[in-house]
Amino acid sequence: MREIGIGIVGGGYMGKAHAVAMAAVGAVFATTLRPRLEMVCATSEASAERYRAAYGFARATADWRALVADPRVEAVIIASPQETHRPIAEAAFAAGKPVFCEKPLGASLEDSRAMVAAAERSGLANMTGFNYIRTPASQFARALVREGAIGRVTWFRGEHCEDFLADPERPANWRTTGEANGTMGDLAPHMINAALALIGPVERLIAEIETVHHDRPGGRVGNDDQAQMMCRFASGAMGHLHFSRIATGRKMGYAYEITGTRGAIRFDQEDQNALWLYRAEGPEATRGFAKILTGPAHPDYLAFCQGPGHGTGYQDQIIIEARDFLRAIETGEPVWPTFRDGLEVSRIVAAARAAAAERRWVEVADF
Amino acid sequence: MREIGIGIVGGGYMGKAHAVAMAAVGAVFATTLRPRLEMVCATSEASAERYRAAYGFARATADWRALVADPRVEAVIIASPQETHRPIAEAAFAAGKPVFCEKPLGASLEDSRAMVAAAERSGLANMTGFNYIRTPASQFARALVREGAIGRVTWFRGEHCEDFLADPERPANWRTTGEANGTMGDLAPHMINAALALIGPVERLIAEIETVHHDRPGGRVGNDDQAQMMCRFASGAMGHLHFSRIATGRKMGYAYEITGTRGAIRFDQEDQNALWLYRAEGPEATRGFAKILTGPAHPDYLAFCQGPGHGTGYQDQIIIEARDFLRAIETGEPVWPTFRDGLEVSRIVAAARAAAAERRWVEVADF
Amino acid sequence: MREIGIGIVGGGYMGKAHAVAMAAVGAVFATTLRPRLEMVCATSEASAERYRAAYGFARATADWRALVADPRVEAVIIASPQETHRPIAEAAFAAGKPVFCEKPLGASLEDSRAMVAAAERSGLANMTGFNYIRTPASQFARALVREGAIGRVTWFRGEHCEDFLADPERPANWRTTGEANGTMGDLAPHMINAALALIGPVERLIAEIETVHHDRPGGRVGNDDQAQMMCRFASGAMGHLHFSRIATGRKMGYAYEITGTRGAIRFDQEDQNALWLYRAEGPEATRGFAKILTGPAHPDYLAFCQGPGHGTGYQDQIIIEARDFLRAIETGEPVWPTFRDGLEVSRIVAAARAAAAERRWVEVADF
Amino acid sequence: MREIGIGIVGGGYMGKAHAVAMAAVGAVFATTLRPRLEMVCATSEASAERYRAAYGFARATADWRALVADPRVEAVIIASPQETHRPIAEAAFAAGKPVFCEKPLGASLEDSRAMVAAAERSGLANMTGFNYIRTPASQFARALVREGAIGRVTWFRGEHCEDFLADPERPANWRTTGEANGTMGDLAPHMINAALALIGPVERLIAEIETVHHDRPGGRVGNDDQAQMMCRFASGAMGHLHFSRIATGRKMGYAYEITGTRGAIRFDQEDQNALWLYRAEGPEATRGFAKILTGPAHPDYLAFCQGPGHGTGYQDQIIIEARDFLRAIETGEPVWPTFRDGLEVSRIVAAARAAAAERRWVEVADF
Repeated sequence: MREIGIGIVGGGYMGKAHAVAMAAVGAVFATTLRPRLEMVCATSEASAERYRAAYGFARATADWRALVADPRVEAVIIASPQETHRPIAEAAFAAGKPVFCEKPLGASLEDSRAMVAAAERSGLANMTGFNYIRTPASQFARALVREGAIGRVTWFRGEHCEDFLADPERPANWRTTGEANGTMGDLAPHMINAALALIGPVERLIAEIETVHHDRPGGRVGNDDQAQMMCRFASGAMGHLHFSRIATGRKMGYAYEITGTRGAIRFDQEDQNALWLYRAEGPEATRGFAKILTGPAHPDYLAFCQGPGHGTGYQDQIIIEARDFLRAIETGEPVWPTFRDGLEVSRIVAAARAAAAERRWVEVADF
Repeated sequence: MREIGIGIVGGGYMGKAHAVAMAAVGAVFATTLRPRLEMVCATSEASAERYRAAYGFARATADWRALVADPRVEAVIIASPQETHRPIAEAAFAAGKPVFCEKPLGASLEDSRAMVAAAERSGLANMTGFNYIRTPASQFARALVREGAIGRVTWFRGEHCEDFLADPERPANWRTTGEANGTMGDLAPHMINAALALIGPVERLIAEIETVHHDRPGGRVGNDDQAQMMCRFASGAMGHLHFSRIATGRKMGYAYEITGTRGAIRFDQEDQNALWLYRAEGPEATRGFAKILTGPAHPDYLAFCQGPGHGTGYQDQIIIEARDFLRAIETGEPVWPTFRDGLEVSRIVAAARAAAAERRWVEVADF
Repeated sequence: MREIGIGIVGGGYMGKAHAVAMAAVGAVFATTLRPRLEMVCATSEASAERYRAAYGFARATADWRALVADPRVEAVIIASPQETHRPIAEAAFAAGKPVFCEKPLGASLEDSRAMVAAAERSGLANMTGFNYIRTPASQFARALVREGAIGRVTWFRGEHCEDFLADPERPANWRTTGEANGTMGDLAPHMINAALALIGPVERLIAEIETVHHDRPGGRVGNDDQAQMMCRFASGAMGHLHFSRIATGRKMGYAYEITGTRGAIRFDQEDQNALWLYRAEGPEATRGFAKILTGPAHPDYLAFCQGPGHGTGYQDQIIIEARDFLRAIETGEPVWPTFRDGLEVSRIVAAARAAAAERRWVEVADF
Repeated sequence: MREIGIGIVGGGYMGKAHAVAMAAVGAVFATTLRPRLEMVCATSEASAERYRAAYGFARATADWRALVADPRVEAVIIASPQETHRPIAEAAFAAGKPVFCEKPLGASLEDSRAMVAAAERSGLANMTGFNYIRTPASQFARALVREGAIGRVTWFRGEHCEDFLADPERPANWRTTGEANGTMGDLAPHMINAALALIGPVERLIAEIETVHHDRPGGRVGNDDQAQMMCRFASGAMGHLHFSRIATGRKMGYAYEITGTRGAIRFDQEDQNALWLYRAEGPEATRGFAKILTGPAHPDYLAFCQGPGHGTGYQDQIIIEARDFLRAIETGEPVWPTFRDGLEVSRIVAAARAAAAERRWVEVADF
């Protein structure tokens, strides 16, 4: 057991989540590496200091280069805006430090590729932050599919739908400008990553990307509100993905259904502690989707609670990520999803943009 | 109140449903026209006689022309295989008799067009049998959308998924041969009709149609197992439709979600007595999808039961259709969905087949 | 196959339900006896004639004695107020006619006993109308418990909760006067019957019966709004029953949970086409309550529809009752629940009234 | 902001939960007092050292007196077996230290009384650990009831059901011996506390307490498996509570329904991020139970996540408790539930034991 100094760039939504996770992960998982909240970086000295005090970091800075270079910072978490991901990651790897980067990996496909190159050149631990796929339920779904519990997959439908911009009167803000902050840039990567994790590579796709509300109080909207794509997986399965930030009523609609020849799985993050499993077994009269409550029998649950059905939450997903990142650092073994896995998601986003613009099916291999 | 002699062509699944409906509809709705089960037609004298005795018809025949021509048969219900729809309908209209025809209207787009022409030339009552849209819940959903209760619709997702052919070991049978009996021919029309009823005309679409299990015990499969389409409604809404007869675990997965700028609706026929409604009103803390149980406050419920939540079922949808058909006959006013409405569905099916074959977006106007 | 003339006393809520059921049952179940709607009786000539015309009876009367005595009435259905049940039933049996009587059997325990005596003396078919237990789901639940699918039952909780009098401003009416029309008289019998059917005899119990809203616009309330009882079944299982007509938000809350040593069952009539079954089998990780949709694999479903999950409704329960009553008449074999079964329910209601009044545990054997 | 040294007695299930909570609470809530994991006590030096290392405490001990007396331990959390609660609490108060004690407060009513006396004499912060009532959903339910959102409460039903001893072949262990470890001692307090929090004091009750499985592999069972009580709240509401550790299929069945004259609430901890609210408002046609997903609009959610529907879990409840305990220490103001609130629960448990033994209604005031 030894301490490791953690530096986090960004102290907002995800920066806080990672700070809490690093504070808790040692006690939860009895990790070999024990995080020390060493330094937090924000856009101004004042906000950095505020985050430092709130989350319990030792030091604060408004200069991410100082954080990356600091000798007591031994690992870097990037939770800053997407266009900053690449330079920070490149600097951190250059300084010999493992990097955890929030999704999406790069602000562009080019950025993502460069980040993977830097990561792989360095030989250092690198991870992309797709937290939702780390619930015990979704990890279990992944295991079920892999083991063939539902037979050969013939259909996958996934969605990531929220409604934070459903009201057309909601004013324009940073989320309504910049491709990276639109629905395809911000929400889609989570469910694309889930599709890849659950079903495997996508071969071709066709997509629609749309801005529904072009004008909002305070300004013109510069990115997309909703999108959908039909796709074909390399395994042969047919698929559909839908993403929306205007899905009135949906709060955390990260949901999927997987149909196989011998069973099916359904999941909705809004009830993240349940997985629905149907198996075409036994007498017809007793078949039905079973609502399985996650518990110690499922991946990464027991560390949080010995009782089944007691439930894990959003913050716990980040704690699981923290454990994985520490393990990657400790063992030198890559832990999924690496930067390369993040790049695969970026390629599909890029392919979808092309398919939507050109109104035609595209091959993912071309991206 | 006066009697009307009913002739039904086909005594199987839907033939029986209509026979029961005609026996019950008078008592349920106190209709002006009171059906008399006059004659049933089946493929052989023996099976026709069996149906006659079972359902309580006065007479039986193996010749639909005899049924259509019989003077005591005053209205004709077509519940026979799809390739027979057109000649029966044409003969019935020629004989001056109103016709109710099970979906899909014609076995081909050409047939459907001819049937509409015959119907409209005759000036007689004509209806297409889309029963699911007649539940109190879906009728209410339609009213809510029309009244603007959820604002402007931005997204529609519909599916008709069952699993009766999910098992690849299920032998080949009549359902696995003939385009009209495939998923696009048999299941898709229901949900396409729902989409049109709920959201309005479809402008363009792109589709995939697939046979997953090509070989089954007993023979080669000649039609499609699953399909999907992305579409754009004339109203501007983005849409997606999915159809499957291999959706393991789904028994009556006629389900839709409608997202609007001020609310949303969700429905699943597997719980046909509930409609989920979200309204973006009131304090955020008390917003949520309300599970509304159908009752006397909803369309066509009260005649079945005075108590809310007591529930209607599959057979009741057919009884509602029967009431509507009798009303169309009685009043001379067309009752939705007419043959022309059935044709609209056929056009979309045809457009989807073309879009899938040519792997491109198509305009529905071209079909 | 032969006709049988049906006479129904009462043309309101349940009278209509039975009229529709008798009109439809032949076609649905291909019964040997084919009902003919012979005569309907109501409180006035005018209303009787109105019912006759609406439901399609041959004749109408305001005198139930005339109906019972009529030679063309071969079987009698009692759907009139509870205090009339006994004299009508006694007269019908005396006239040699089978009787179906709506629940609760008699308006008092004494009435119920007299009715059983008359029925058994006559040797004629007799049935009590507990419709809810006849859904395919509840019939299947009964079979599962009987076969030991959930092991030994240790706990039963049942409720019959509606909210038609939840609003204190709802005016006083016939439902708010007379013991027989209160919650214990009107709603409780359904769930008590279910408890007996599912778990077996009740040995002892203690209860609370309460009028919550004593005054309503238009008058003083004369009967009970809600009640509960703890009970012990002869099998050893612990039980609880709850009844309410002021259960705000509950529309048809006829619901139960049955816990056994090897499994559990949950059911709610508000989603009457689903039964939830948990079995303590297989790996812990895949255990969960399965939502089983009723279908042809379940009792009495197939006659209504060949497709699973398509759903039956309230009216279909009455059609199943009609089939059972006709079968009892035809075969001479008693069909559950007979008048004696109805009496068992009345005894528990009487025991509960005593337990509540005396505030102590009572033995059902004493009633 | 200043540090505070925390000592935890017990390192098992709840000891770990509190250790994690104290590690995380500062970052989550930006608390003024910042916990330092100072010392953990377990039954042996070896296990204490193991807990120390795993959770990150500075020191370990096998002697709770040493922990209580240690000058660097400034607050004590009791998470050890119930019979140890009283002496530890008394010693801690005597040493001038605030105490957080896991439920149930004392192993007996006498112990609970003594603990309240010691706490109140000391004037120090004291809290009882009822974590489930601290979910954002249940806190919101409490607020809704208090504000009259559902009118006057007429009915409350609560249960705490799990199935960890449902299998009769599960061997005897510490949980199957000792009154305090039975269902009434271990599970019932949670839901009794919820009932008091949501509805207010209980006036009288009658109960049944039962051991279903008397013999298990490895020994005779010495405490109860399931129990139920009917009760009357001081407010006039009728109530029922049920507790079970043999409720096959129920994993975390801490569930309640609250019926009021103008609305109703339903909650089940197995889906802890949803609260179901029915309001008798607006047109009948749009009424239904709304499934409200917890989010920043609900109590204590925002600190865990800015997005609604993203969900909190079991561990987060303990973090909320930690925040409250720190606040009580900091401000000197009692934070609900204090030891006195824990005593109220113990009184009801004692009353229920008497009511069950004597088979009669008892007044809670007599305990």
